Amino acid sequence: MSSSLKNKIEEYFDRLWPLNRSITGVDYRKSLDILSEIMPTNRLKFKTNQKVFDWKVPEEWNVKDAYFVDSNGKKHADFKKNNLHLVGYSIPFQGKLSKKELEKHLHFLPEKPDAIPYVVSYYKKTWGFCISYREYQSLPEGDYEIFIDSMHFPGHIEIGEVVLEGKTDEEILFSTYLCHSSMANNELSGPLVMAFLFDKLKDISDRRYTYRFAIMPETIGSICYLTERGMHLKKKMVAGFQLTCLGDPGNFSYKLSRRQNTLADKVATLILRDMNSTNIYQFDPSDGTDDRQYCSPGFNLPFGSLMRTPYSKYYEYHTSLDNKDFISFKALEESVNIYFKLFKLLEYNIIWESKNPYCEPQLGKRNLYPNLSSYSGHSKLVGDFEAIMWLLNMADGTNDIIQIANVSKVSVENLLVCAKVLYEAGLIDTKNNIASGLMKNFHEGEY
Amino acid sequence: MSSSLKNKIEEYFDRLWPLNRSITGVDYRKSLDILSEIMPTNRLKFKTNQKVFDWKVPEEWNVKDAYFVDSNGKKHADFKKNNLHLVGYSIPFQGKLSKKELEKHLHFLPEKPDAIPYVVSYYKKTWGFCISYREYQSLPEGDYEIFIDSMHFPGHIEIGEVVLEGKTDEEILFSTYLCHSSMANNELSGPLVMAFLFDKLKDISDRRYTYRFAIMPETIGSICYLTERGMHLKKKMVAGFQLTCLGDPGNFSYKLSRRQNTLADKVATLILRDMNSTNIYQFDPSDGTDDRQYCSPGFNLPFGSLMRTPYSKYYEYHTSLDNKDFISFKALEESVNIYFKLFKLLEYNIIWESKNPYCEPQLGKRNLYPNLSSYSGHSKLVGDFEAIMWLLNMADGTNDIIQIANVSKVSVENLLVCAKVLYEAGLIDTKNNIASGLMKNFHEGEY
Amino acid sequence: MSSSLKNKIEEYFDRLWPLNRSITGVDYRKSLDILSEIMPTNRLKFKTNQKVFDWKVPEEWNVKDAYFVDSNGKKHADFKKNNLHLVGYSIPFQGKLSKKELEKHLHFLPEKPDAIPYVVSYYKKTWGFCISYREYQSLPEGDYEIFIDSMHFPGHIEIGEVVLEGKTDEEILFSTYLCHSSMANNELSGPLVMAFLFDKLKDISDRRYTYRFAIMPETIGSICYLTERGMHLKKKMVAGFQLTCLGDPGNFSYKLSRRQNTLADKVATLILRDMNSTNIYQFDPSDGTDDRQYCSPGFNLPFGSLMRTPYSKYYEYHTSLDNKDFISFKALEESVNIYFKLFKLLEYNIIWESKNPYCEPQLGKRNLYPNLSSYSGHSKLVGDFEAIMWLLNMADGTNDIIQIANVSKVSVENLLVCAKVLYEAGLIDTKNNIASGLMKNFHEGEY
Repeated sequence: MSSSLKNKIEEYFDRLWPLNRSITGVDYRKSLDILSEIMPTNRLKFKTNQKVFDWKVPEEWNVKDAYFVDSNGKKHADFKKNNLHLVGYSIPFQGKLSKKELEKHLHFLPEKPDAIPYVVSYYKKTWGFCISYREYQSLPEGDYEIFIDSMHFPGHIEIGEVVLEGKTDEEILFSTYLCHSSMANNELSGPLVMAFLFDKLKDISDRRYTYRFAIMPETIGSICYLTERGMHLKKKMVAGFQLTCLGDPGNFSYKLSRRQNTLADKVATLILRDMNSTNIYQFDPSDGTDDRQYCSPGFNLPFGSLMRTPYSKYYEYHTSLDNKDFISFKALEESVNIYFKLFKLLEYNIIWESKNPYCEPQLGKRNLYPNLSSYSGHSKLVGDFEAIMWLLNMADGTNDIIQIANVSKVSVENLLVCAKVLYEAGLIDTKNNIASGLMKNFHEGEY
Repeated sequence: MSSSLKNKIEEYFDRLWPLNRSITGVDYRKSLDILSEIMPTNRLKFKTNQKVFDWKVPEEWNVKDAYFVDSNGKKHADFKKNNLHLVGYSIPFQGKLSKKELEKHLHFLPEKPDAIPYVVSYYKKTWGFCISYREYQSLPEGDYEIFIDSMHFPGHIEIGEVVLEGKTDEEILFSTYLCHSSMANNELSGPLVMAFLFDKLKDISDRRYTYRFAIMPETIGSICYLTERGMHLKKKMVAGFQLTCLGDPGNFSYKLSRRQNTLADKVATLILRDMNSTNIYQFDPSDGTDDRQYCSPGFNLPFGSLMRTPYSKYYEYHTSLDNKDFISFKALEESVNIYFKLFKLLEYNIIWESKNPYCEPQLGKRNLYPNLSSYSGHSKLVGDFEAIMWLLNMADGTNDIIQIANVSKVSVENLLVCAKVLYEAGLIDTKNNIASGLMKNFHEGEY
Repeated sequence: MSSSLKNKIEEYFDRLWPLNRSITGVDYRKSLDILSEIMPTNRLKFKTNQKVFDWKVPEEWNVKDAYFVDSNGKKHADFKKNNLHLVGYSIPFQGKLSKKELEKHLHFLPEKPDAIPYVVSYYKKTWGFCISYREYQSLPEGDYEIFIDSMHFPGHIEIGEVVLEGKTDEEILFSTYLCHSSMANNELSGPLVMAFLFDKLKDISDRRYTYRFAIMPETIGSICYLTERGMHLKKKMVAGFQLTCLGDPGNFSYKLSRRQNTLADKVATLILRDMNSTNIYQFDPSDGTDDRQYCSPGFNLPFGSLMRTPYSKYYEYHTSLDNKDFISFKALEESVNIYFKLFKLLEYNIIWESKNPYCEPQLGKRNLYPNLSSYSGHSKLVGDFEAIMWLLNMADGTNDIIQIANVSKVSVENLLVCAKVLYEAGLIDTKNNIASGLMKNFHEGEY
């Protein structure tokens, strides 16, 4: 099943790749529809010119064709070859310009001579082309014919959303954005990992938390989303995660929420620790994605970003080099699994109480302890033994699994497995009866 | 007197060494009696099969003889030569076995070829022998005659206890265990240091705290002890210490209590600091001695372990190599003195109040300050001068000596001596009148 | 104006340098008068023998002449050549002494052979001379004629004080001492920087805080001052600073207050951070100046020392080597400017509130954001952009500029400038209406 997940992700990647996604438009909608085959979403719609907090919903944008032709008749910046050639939200334009006049509308990166940069202008009406620096250097003198057949028109911002109900109404949010055309890691990786994570979670019964999944355009999308869901999330959401940059081969990293010490932060930090990753980044409102909106001071949600190499920390970021060659489907599959581990820790992060709080219980008579105590006696058991002793000692009705993992340095995996063993041996329990359903579930999930 | 203390410790060591101590039995009782010559203890008794929390008191165990003979008639694993040769609590057995069958009952350590390991099996009825790996390798083929003349019978777990009353009923507990046969550092060092510490404290008048001393078998002993004293200690005990591993030549170390910041932890940490030792270890329920019981979540006592090289951190641990050659009687004497320093800090850890809180008092007119202030003027006084200035500045009715020592980095010794000077100069005092008795005592103790 | 400030400081330095300042006396008063040309102070007077807390105000001291003559008729330790030659507060003496008898009254520093040490004896009646070790070594055998024409007489300790009222009665204290004769960094630098700081602050309208400036003799001066102002300061003072050691070419440093986390500490620590200085020192009652009195436990004021190289950390300290050659007038001018920065941070350390707390406001339509978002799009704006995004995100009515600077690592300068931009764009405001007056002022001050 492992290899089939990888393959399924690639299959969906290949279908999504050619579409010219932007914050609106036909191809954005098509992309949502394709993802709905795995994760069927409802659509929230926000009409052009609708006021969303301090912003207004922009018009939609579609493109039929765009390029320019040099005096030798050679076509350049052909939108049909790569969507990135046209500045996002370019207005239509047709006419002859001198090279000098054209140059005011050209974008390229001398420091990355083979890369087509990613440029958009949503809120200022203009047009432009993006080309590699090598192509720019090859442009001949003379006049140029410009052709941009694009269209702006009233329509909607659309957001895909789906909820998996749990036993409590406390919510976990997974959020991603889908507006970037022709880039693989940022951002087809986020929507793909989300869809296949949904696929793993949807059939698990007795979920403790309610899980909410949302796909949107970046920035204006989360502003729209929070117009609709902000107050609800402020009341119910206990942890949320930005799914972004999940396909590159780099190590995992986490960007903290504004509050720094929320459930989201604690869970993600532990997941990283158990992978020996120390890539923890502070929240930074001047360098973020939708966490800038979720963590705006009025909402201040417990929302962080669990990713691989963060945006703007890899060379290919926001250029044509962020393509299928750059990502790995093995990495994407692993990202789904890591998010699944995060789900497990959230679900089984129980506050246990020892039924024998005075002195240790006798583990030997329960076959949980080496009866023969010798110099190297418990070497074989040592992983489990540590987890068992820490769980029993810290199970005083105040510490959850996260706290025990942090103090003991024992892996989450070992603690979760041993908690089940101790629960079934009648040595620990919970005040309310949440344990019974959850512990049953612990097997059903096939971890 | 210093050399005589060292010699006295050695004399008692030599009398205790040959006895076959276990968690019960004749030789355990004899050992308690010998120690009672210095520290006379009452005996708490817990009957075989009595329920103590989740456990049952086991039967007693005595051994007359044990060995096995090879086909050449050579005796091996002679219990009379070294008690460690017999697995603790071995059942009686007599008969002829093939080498292969015997091997299932043999314990040795290939990685320490000259060491006889220490192995016990208190709660599972079995028998076994411990030999060095070299001896194991020399065993010939053929059948073996086994002889174990041991006996299990109803009796008691016994604990020796004595209390030195103080002016308050707040208690300090010193706890050690006496169940390990034929090992020197772990554990004749703990009971020996405790007995001679008792000897130093017993004649000091006007003690502030009540001091409780307890000698027991490990684990089952502390479980019994807490059955009897647990609730009392939970109410009255302000600090407690495990006396263990106090005879090796290594530096001092301290293992924190579960709560990490109790009076026990603060005092021991400072004592280490003033010896330039940074060997502070976290509490760990999967690697401890009786602190695992004292710090079980229901009791959660302020109990740590002030030792030299911790158990399991030295090569000789739990083998026949932990013998008289390994320990040093100079080290044992020093351990008694370090515990005496700890006693002093506990007693004189006073919250002082300056009688001149507004601006500094004029020390010159009291001959506590160099009247001639020059560039290198107070170089001669500098140790005391720092202690005096810090005491006066921090003596605001909220800081005890521990806090002043931590903030100022001045040694405890200097602070205690200068506090007496300032008290006698009328510059500091205490709210209640505890100072007068204590300060009188400060001399009487001959520190 | 920059060079004229440097020159003005030097001009006043040259007039103050020759005077024989001590804790009392004619030249101390003359020095106060000279400084009053820039910073006109009222004089608080404390009569000889007046009780000030645990101390008594000493007599005044004036000197007409002092020296000693060797058997060859050569004059040594001529007070008229260097005031440091005479031990401060020496009693009058005239007579012939053997070299051996004289030597009991001589002070020199073998480790600094060219330096005349600074020695005083305010509270023990004695006399003495200070000479370089080289001069000491050159003294011939034979008798010596001693001549000290000094005088002790009832009079006063005097303190110069001036207050600049602000809109609130919360006070900032600047304190310095003026009692050291013939030393440049310690201590003409403190009074000079204070006077010229006063000069910069006096004409700024709409000051938020009330600023109090005080010049006094060290130790006995601050004890007198606190007798008069202590209880008032305890109620009203929110931050205070010792102005000392501000003329050497070293980096800036800060010695914390006893409370360690007061407004004074936070402001000074940030000022240092933005200069890349990590020279933060703990409060130490055994090594301080008047902070020992301001931070005595009864007052415990929020008072620290913002200096360059701290006293006793430079070779020339408290000797004749601490002279005009050692200091730099450029450094003194810079010290005035750094204290002015500190003033600005105090004044504009506002708790802002975003008017758009839910999601980010749209900065593009206000020309505060690059409309064209590209790979390297905001590189040109990056400093300001960071400040703007952090201010908007943290402006939740709980964080002041200090907290925002600490979390964001953005420079105070950038934050203050951008706060004004955002305030004027209507994006942030304050609960009360303190912002309007202050922000008007922000320009008037010509920062």
